[in-house]
Amino acid sequence: MSEFKLDLERTARIGFGEAIYCAGKSAAQVGAILESDPARSLLLTRLDAAKFDALPTPVRSRLDWDPVSQTAWQGDPAPVAGHSGPRIAIVTAGTSDVPVAREAARTLRFSGHDSTEIVDVGVAGLWRLLDRVEELRRHEVVIVVAGMDAALPSVIGGLVPGVVIAVPTSVGYGVAAGGRAGLDAILASCSPGVTVVNIDNGYGGACAALRVLNAMTRLSKDHSS
Amino acid sequence: MSEFKLDLERTARIGFGEAIYCAGKSAAQVGAILESDPARSLLLTRLDAAKFDALPTPVRSRLDWDPVSQTAWQGDPAPVAGHSGPRIAIVTAGTSDVPVAREAARTLRFSGHDSTEIVDVGVAGLWRLLDRVEELRRHEVVIVVAGMDAALPSVIGGLVPGVVIAVPTSVGYGVAAGGRAGLDAILASCSPGVTVVNIDNGYGGACAALRVLNAMTRLSKDHSS
Amino acid sequence: MSEFKLDLERTARIGFGEAIYCAGKSAAQVGAILESDPARSLLLTRLDAAKFDALPTPVRSRLDWDPVSQTAWQGDPAPVAGHSGPRIAIVTAGTSDVPVAREAARTLRFSGHDSTEIVDVGVAGLWRLLDRVEELRRHEVVIVVAGMDAALPSVIGGLVPGVVIAVPTSVGYGVAAGGRAGLDAILASCSPGVTVVNIDNGYGGACAALRVLNAMTRLSKDHSS
Amino acid sequence: MSEFKLDLERTARIGFGEAIYCAGKSAAQVGAILESDPARSLLLTRLDAAKFDALPTPVRSRLDWDPVSQTAWQGDPAPVAGHSGPRIAIVTAGTSDVPVAREAARTLRFSGHDSTEIVDVGVAGLWRLLDRVEELRRHEVVIVVAGMDAALPSVIGGLVPGVVIAVPTSVGYGVAAGGRAGLDAILASCSPGVTVVNIDNGYGGACAALRVLNAMTRLSKDHSS
Amino acid sequence: MSEFKLDLERTARIGFGEAIYCAGKSAAQVGAILESDPARSLLLTRLDAAKFDALPTPVRSRLDWDPVSQTAWQGDPAPVAGHSGPRIAIVTAGTSDVPVAREAARTLRFSGHDSTEIVDVGVAGLWRLLDRVEELRRHEVVIVVAGMDAALPSVIGGLVPGVVIAVPTSVGYGVAAGGRAGLDAILASCSPGVTVVNIDNGYGGACAALRVLNAMTRLSKDHSS
Amino acid sequence: MSEFKLDLERTARIGFGEAIYCAGKSAAQVGAILESDPARSLLLTRLDAAKFDALPTPVRSRLDWDPVSQTAWQGDPAPVAGHSGPRIAIVTAGTSDVPVAREAARTLRFSGHDSTEIVDVGVAGLWRLLDRVEELRRHEVVIVVAGMDAALPSVIGGLVPGVVIAVPTSVGYGVAAGGRAGLDAILASCSPGVTVVNIDNGYGGACAALRVLNAMTRLSKDHSS
Amino acid sequence: MSEFKLDLERTARIGFGEAIYCAGKSAAQVGAILESDPARSLLLTRLDAAKFDALPTPVRSRLDWDPVSQTAWQGDPAPVAGHSGPRIAIVTAGTSDVPVAREAARTLRFSGHDSTEIVDVGVAGLWRLLDRVEELRRHEVVIVVAGMDAALPSVIGGLVPGVVIAVPTSVGYGVAAGGRAGLDAILASCSPGVTVVNIDNGYGGACAALRVLNAMTRLSKDHSS
Amino acid sequence: MSEFKLDLERTARIGFGEAIYCAGKSAAQVGAILESDPARSLLLTRLDAAKFDALPTPVRSRLDWDPVSQTAWQGDPAPVAGHSGPRIAIVTAGTSDVPVAREAARTLRFSGHDSTEIVDVGVAGLWRLLDRVEELRRHEVVIVVAGMDAALPSVIGGLVPGVVIAVPTSVGYGVAAGGRAGLDAILASCSPGVTVVNIDNGYGGACAALRVLNAMTRLSKDHSS
Repeated sequence: MSEFKLDLERTARIGFGEAIYCAGKSAAQVGAILESDPARSLLLTRLDAAKFDALPTPVRSRLDWDPVSQTAWQGDPAPVAGHSGPRIAIVTAGTSDVPVAREAARTLRFSGHDSTEIVDVGVAGLWRLLDRVEELRRHEVVIVVAGMDAALPSVIGGLVPGVVIAVPTSVGYGVAAGGRAGLDAILASCSPGVTVVNIDNGYGGACAALRVLNAMTRLSKDHSS
Repeated sequence: MSEFKLDLERTARIGFGEAIYCAGKSAAQVGAILESDPARSLLLTRLDAAKFDALPTPVRSRLDWDPVSQTAWQGDPAPVAGHSGPRIAIVTAGTSDVPVAREAARTLRFSGHDSTEIVDVGVAGLWRLLDRVEELRRHEVVIVVAGMDAALPSVIGGLVPGVVIAVPTSVGYGVAAGGRAGLDAILASCSPGVTVVNIDNGYGGACAALRVLNAMTRLSKDHSS
Repeated sequence: MSEFKLDLERTARIGFGEAIYCAGKSAAQVGAILESDPARSLLLTRLDAAKFDALPTPVRSRLDWDPVSQTAWQGDPAPVAGHSGPRIAIVTAGTSDVPVAREAARTLRFSGHDSTEIVDVGVAGLWRLLDRVEELRRHEVVIVVAGMDAALPSVIGGLVPGVVIAVPTSVGYGVAAGGRAGLDAILASCSPGVTVVNIDNGYGGACAALRVLNAMTRLSKDHSS
Repeated sequence: MSEFKLDLERTARIGFGEAIYCAGKSAAQVGAILESDPARSLLLTRLDAAKFDALPTPVRSRLDWDPVSQTAWQGDPAPVAGHSGPRIAIVTAGTSDVPVAREAARTLRFSGHDSTEIVDVGVAGLWRLLDRVEELRRHEVVIVVAGMDAALPSVIGGLVPGVVIAVPTSVGYGVAAGGRAGLDAILASCSPGVTVVNIDNGYGGACAALRVLNAMTRLSKDHSS
Repeated sequence: MSEFKLDLERTARIGFGEAIYCAGKSAAQVGAILESDPARSLLLTRLDAAKFDALPTPVRSRLDWDPVSQTAWQGDPAPVAGHSGPRIAIVTAGTSDVPVAREAARTLRFSGHDSTEIVDVGVAGLWRLLDRVEELRRHEVVIVVAGMDAALPSVIGGLVPGVVIAVPTSVGYGVAAGGRAGLDAILASCSPGVTVVNIDNGYGGACAALRVLNAMTRLSKDHSS
Repeated sequence: MSEFKLDLERTARIGFGEAIYCAGKSAAQVGAILESDPARSLLLTRLDAAKFDALPTPVRSRLDWDPVSQTAWQGDPAPVAGHSGPRIAIVTAGTSDVPVAREAARTLRFSGHDSTEIVDVGVAGLWRLLDRVEELRRHEVVIVVAGMDAALPSVIGGLVPGVVIAVPTSVGYGVAAGGRAGLDAILASCSPGVTVVNIDNGYGGACAALRVLNAMTRLSKDHSS
Repeated sequence: MSEFKLDLERTARIGFGEAIYCAGKSAAQVGAILESDPARSLLLTRLDAAKFDALPTPVRSRLDWDPVSQTAWQGDPAPVAGHSGPRIAIVTAGTSDVPVAREAARTLRFSGHDSTEIVDVGVAGLWRLLDRVEELRRHEVVIVVAGMDAALPSVIGGLVPGVVIAVPTSVGYGVAAGGRAGLDAILASCSPGVTVVNIDNGYGGACAALRVLNAMTRLSKDHSS
Repeated sequence: MSEFKLDLERTARIGFGEAIYCAGKSAAQVGAILESDPARSLLLTRLDAAKFDALPTPVRSRLDWDPVSQTAWQGDPAPVAGHSGPRIAIVTAGTSDVPVAREAARTLRFSGHDSTEIVDVGVAGLWRLLDRVEELRRHEVVIVVAGMDAALPSVIGGLVPGVVIAVPTSVGYGVAAGGRAGLDAILASCSPGVTVVNIDNGYGGACAALRVLNAMTRLSKDHSS
């Protein structure tokens, strides 16, 4: 019995392909998936160093692996579209949130989108953020990655007109351990229209952004046709 | 000491104005806010029948109040933009989710956007949903309102390419009471790129949609200029 | 068996007297306590309108009762000390947080301290707060009362040098209902040195401030002696 | 003091024998149980590789151990009954759910029942499931193993008439970590008559199926007698 | 927009029809559903006295309403099948669990099945239960309804060979309030093969039993054909 | 600064001495405490093998260490009082609960009391327990140690007249992981007069028994004097 | 079907009879139970004023009802044994804890035991407690009733040698609402041998005391025989 | 992209500088921060032995590292102010709480303040605390560090007039594991004016004290100017 069925029609249905979530899979399972179709461009998430090292050499050598975000891709990512499309910013509250932010950035890059990264602008040092607000306001989509109290998405949500997608992280200790405190703070935000995805889900935040970008593209094509 | 400061610059900053959340305010407080600027168009949420009836007659007579969603507006809503813009669908899993869905619809209408409502298509009767999938796929934004197990956003997220904004509701009993079970199910969804707002927050779901719509409009203007 | 023992030595021990927490007591019990020593100055908290109205007329007529904060006092509050002492500000994120803030203000007033109230400056409209920062920075103690995501204490904690005592409120719905989300956000705050008391505990926030004020006074006396 | 009492009459009472749950026992304890009655057919669950390797060689050599499900049996399993009895399907939402599903399959096999395994048909790629619905509808019992949001049991519960036993798994991260989110989603399911067992309890799901199968057999014997 | 879509094909798909869950619907909505098809046999659950009394007289007079279980049906229930089929017992731990048990009994009766009710045999007085064990062992399906610590399903699960479906109730106070303690105890049961449905979900427990009964009937037909 | 203050008067105040809880202390700290008073009889709990092995040899050689319960004592335990005093039973639901039960037994032995251990009599095999009920009824104190659903204390509480002290354990997985489910089940027990201590707290269960035993002895002395 | 089975042999088994827990029963059900055996002495708990008033007059007139504890008894309580037996104290932290304490006192009185009540000695005013410690140390059993942070059982547990049974109450707000905070504090107590029963369970605390008292009596009889 | 932005103006804004929280950072990241400005005095927290050892030798040799508190500083701490200023005490309930207390003491020392440490005076041995109360009453600020039931801050809060800042710790097991039980007990404290920071947050407790100390100093300067 094969234990994995790649959802080949996903791109046709929702606009981007299935990624391989490696956390619950053995190196052998990941290797088998990649070997089953070596020519296919595939994104892998949660591929830690030990599992990456345990992949068969031919498979591993085909991968572009990033240790910070623990993402990799097989084959070529989509080409970047150019400069006239929507702009995406990825903002982090702290240094420890960078791995999750990078997972989002790599997911977007794999789909052909660059993004602006702005790191370590948490609300404890508010002016670091205020210095960048005008820049942020020019982005159509802002992904905000924050752990601990996750006050940053609320503050940004009150300052920028773009789509705000918050990604809470599990960074923190005590009541913040695991990320529930930050997640709930975002959900309870008094800044209207801030949306959220699961804790540490940089991939999901990027996919939410891709839905926005793709909808913009489709709408634009409808109009020009 | 005045206890309320209307955030008058909010529209300039984020693209839509502040709504009056009436749940934590007395009828006297709500009345005072409305009387302070009777010419201003204002949206009110969570205005239940008892509080609406307790408003001073001149104030109450200026309101367009909807008992299902417990929303009202003073003054004229924004005119509907026409048919060439992005399309928004609002889907509910059950009949009991309709008040929250209607809060979203009314918020969008107040800002000048119509929406398509599709109700009672929960996954227990999957074909009711599948009959509408092609229609749903033509909408740029889909707001999915669901209580109990909230499986509907996951299923829709795997079927449509548009922006999917889930609004969990507090509909249900036992482990579903209060809405946390549904909220967590959405956050844990295996369908990528589904975002979520707070439980019963139809207003927030609509605001998230407004951010997408406004970003599309701004981008479109940038290109045509 | 008498069911209540007033802790008469509390002021000697900790610097302020015992308040009567009326929520768990019947009007009869509250009345009996007040009648047992009608000449004593006493602060009462959580005395709602129904219980106040149910008090015997002679008792009720001796009370200075405030309907917003549901506090009352029997006898004279302490005289206000004058203008050379420490300054206390009480800030609220929203209009719905005012009753808790007022409980703090009344507790301070009963002990002889005025306070500056600044309301409805939540982070969704950040400039409302930034306009007051310089003023806030001149206060030795800042009590911050906030519900929902309670991002305000984090932001203030990063901007002012004074003692910051946060009071989360139960204002909100969904994940914010009951106040736990806001409480946890404050505890997880990335702004160092922000302390917190129980949800809706305006009285406790004021007592924490009294400890600071009294310590300042004692220290000052030590030095001048 | 002997620390283990095998419940020898369990089969007579409830229709199937006691399994040895190895997670809370040392290799020495597991070995002692097996050596106490080497001729008895016994099922072992949660026997990981390290504990299996630490068993005394004679004991280990008598075991049929499966590394995926971490189950083993000593002695012969019951013979498979043939093709006229009730049919059992085991369905998983994802690849990571396979170990739990295999625990169920092995438990059933030990008791003399084959089962149909259908893997990786989670709702994010709904057509993978819909392709198998007609097949699923022909099974008297369907065990559904799902982690993360566990939307699959709800969807299957609305499509098939058979007994649906859901087994939530601890697969997932963030709000899904530990499996509570999926468990609650199943309990809150709007599809009527879906039952559930503890998180990761493949053994329990199989035992619930055995109760159904045995009841069918007893009823059938009653009628033919 | 009609806010309710009856899932008319449900019986064909899963073997029993959709019930009207009245808790989240107004009397007007319930009345409209019933008036839309007055000839159809329909089961209603969670129809409390106030809502029942508020129904239009013609609708109300067509209903067979039971105040204990707050269930009702319009039209005729299915005829009881006779005495050769599977036997169902419904057991409660305490008197306070009877309303939930009765909801299950009424749901079964509506579908053409009688059941044996055994009440108030909680484990604090174990002999009350042991006196009935032999009788219980002759039932193919045992629905166990229990609040507080819900130890009863564990004990019964170890004593009878039939299908055991547990329904935890919200009966209790302190840690038992709401029913989570009992639900978790059942899920953690050391008696194998006990399944569970949502708290207070007598209807769901009965539907789970119907799945078993229907599977038995289909299998029996297959064999005799 | 010395970081440990032995509470030397504890025996005089409450009837038994302070035990050294080793879990939060380093081997160096444990060693220093023991070396500070080598002639004193001391009980140590939660002393795992690694920490025991890391103690200085002279200290280690003075200890009577038990690997199952991870307890040890320095010096001589109190002599066992003889056979006319109260009888104590320690009962476990499963094999995995034995370490906690042994911690209780060792604590009692250190204080001069033997106890009867009855293991693996969980309610899934009820007759194993019923066979011992008459014996249990002759004990003045019954300590019941149980994990998972912890139904055993409820059942025993309904069958014996003695003092019942329940000790929930963290044995279990899924909803039982950590022991909260079992703890809550005991607290919610319908068997009156069952008391409980913290999860895995065999030491605490024994101390509660010591309070009963000591009270009996004091009362007996009062009467005979 | 009769919905209530009085456990008539309970006194023979465990030493005290079954009480009627009225919270989950209608006045009609309570009345029927009492009328079924009007000559039997019976204790009733959680019988609030409304339910008491709704009882049939002949039943109500046979009851000794106490409004503070909401307990009642039919028939005569057991005679008080005299002064040579064990002494029981009931201590409360605050005035609001008195109803729960009184439930315990009335339960003991119904079984023939007087008790000493000491109220309002919470740790905020420690000297109120310290003044009574010598008196408390002379009691064989101390029931401690406390809400909010429930620090009182820890403090008493470190000061007295008797059996300490803690009853947490639901008194409090914010994190203390419902009583879980106090319950957990007691379970986590650093004072060894403090046991606990469910929140607000004064009846259970008294039953635990009865088990101790009865064991003392049985042991004493054994010795004198 | 640099992943760290030191908040250089923090001292000017709030009175003390940013500390480097090392738990979520790699040794490489910590090293880079320190090397970027080797002359700057910097405090580091949560720097465990492994990470400290992994720092580049030149960086490591510049650090004053304390293994108990896992804190370090680069450069010189502020000089201690002398003996006329406010006095700070740090009290712990148990030996296991010392690392958190030491983090607070080291943070204060880095900012130029000595403190009095009083350890292992938990309420189980109340006289150890009472012996020190008069001493404690002479301190302007008392930081109380306590795990398990965290009853100590309540008791101290009722005995001393100074500012009481509680730091709950994660010391404990069962319901106390993680520290939530102690945190909630402190928040629910009946001793008024006790404030709290996050679990294990010794640094935060010290910063709260610094705010008090700095406010005293500013106020004193205002008066003398």
